[in-house]
Amino acid sequence: MSLDTLDLKSLVRTIPDYPKPGIMFRDITTLIGHADGFRAAIRRLAAPYEGEKIDAVAGIEARGFIVGGAVADRLGCGFIPIRKKGKLPWRAVGQDYQLEYGTDIIEMHEDAVKPGERVLIVDDLIATGGTAEAAVKLIKLVGGEVAGAAFVIDLPELGGVAKLSAHGVRSHALIATGGTA
Amino acid sequence: MSLDTLDLKSLVRTIPDYPKPGIMFRDITTLIGHADGFRAAIRRLAAPYEGEKIDAVAGIEARGFIVGGAVADRLGCGFIPIRKKGKLPWRAVGQDYQLEYGTDIIEMHEDAVKPGERVLIVDDLIATGGTAEAAVKLIKLVGGEVAGAAFVIDLPELGGVAKLSAHGVRSHALIATGGTA
Repeated sequence: MSLDTLDLKSLVRTIPDYPKPGIMFRDITTLIGHADGFRAAIRRLAAPYEGEKIDAVAGIEARGFIVGGAVADRLGCGFIPIRKKGKLPWRAVGQDYQLEYGTDIIEMHEDAVKPGERVLIVDDLIATGGTAEAAVKLIKLVGGEVAGAAFVIDLPELGGVAKLSAHGVRSHALIATGGTA
Repeated sequence: MSLDTLDLKSLVRTIPDYPKPGIMFRDITTLIGHADGFRAAIRRLAAPYEGEKIDAVAGIEARGFIVGGAVADRLGCGFIPIRKKGKLPWRAVGQDYQLEYGTDIIEMHEDAVKPGERVLIVDDLIATGGTAEAAVKLIKLVGGEVAGAAFVIDLPELGGVAKLSAHGVRSHALIATGGTA
């Protein structure tokens, strides 16, 4: 089968009632563990941005690091880690975002993006879009431009892509599905 | 400057007294944030394994995900996440390893490697080699073969590469330096 026609959705493992009853967890480890599946996913994440000026890919900890690093290598640009609070060793800027109960914070090194640089956000999955929206704010805070956002999986009923769109950020996802993660 | 001659060591930021007094922390975010630096690093990590049969790259959470995902894409193979305890959604095998004080556990999905598959371990840094040794044991536990181990930074005085060598595992690192992380 060609990489262009490979059905990525069939390579995702669904785990019922994880991490709690009623949740259908979309496990991408079976997709990224599949040689052709991984290659096809990285190619499709990068494709809309080939030929554009992209200065860096910002990947969101932890699964966004796996796909984001490979997309950065494909695009020939640098990689910026966006991490949970307290994990980065240098001076960082932080942004809080809403969880189901309470809030959390993600951080980025304050010198990771130079003013005017164009940054592509990459993560494995977009649900409500809270983390991705916080990433958009961090990149803008230090003067960067968000070139777009790319995800392996979108859960459209949770509205994440629409939330980014309200910030003027275009998104694409390789797989759209129901459930939540 | 050509990618082949680029001095990667000069792109690493050294942070004194992080995470505690007396430690010289080697921060690779400046290296991987540099487009040519990141590309050169991934190329040099993958180079010894091009043309070999590698079924998967196993990357160790979290910085090993960034470089490991890109190396897997270069080699055209799958990617296996090795994570801290309790982070993987499916049935996992665990292995403990020694920390400075106490022990910790890393895990891998039990179906991530099929018997006889050849796996390349990738991480950003090898110090005492405790985590990498635990990764070797996990891969062997499920019947895989360790094709080798590749690191961005080696702290040779801490003996990690020698520890892997005692398991018959060859390693290479792009940068050798003192200090610890």
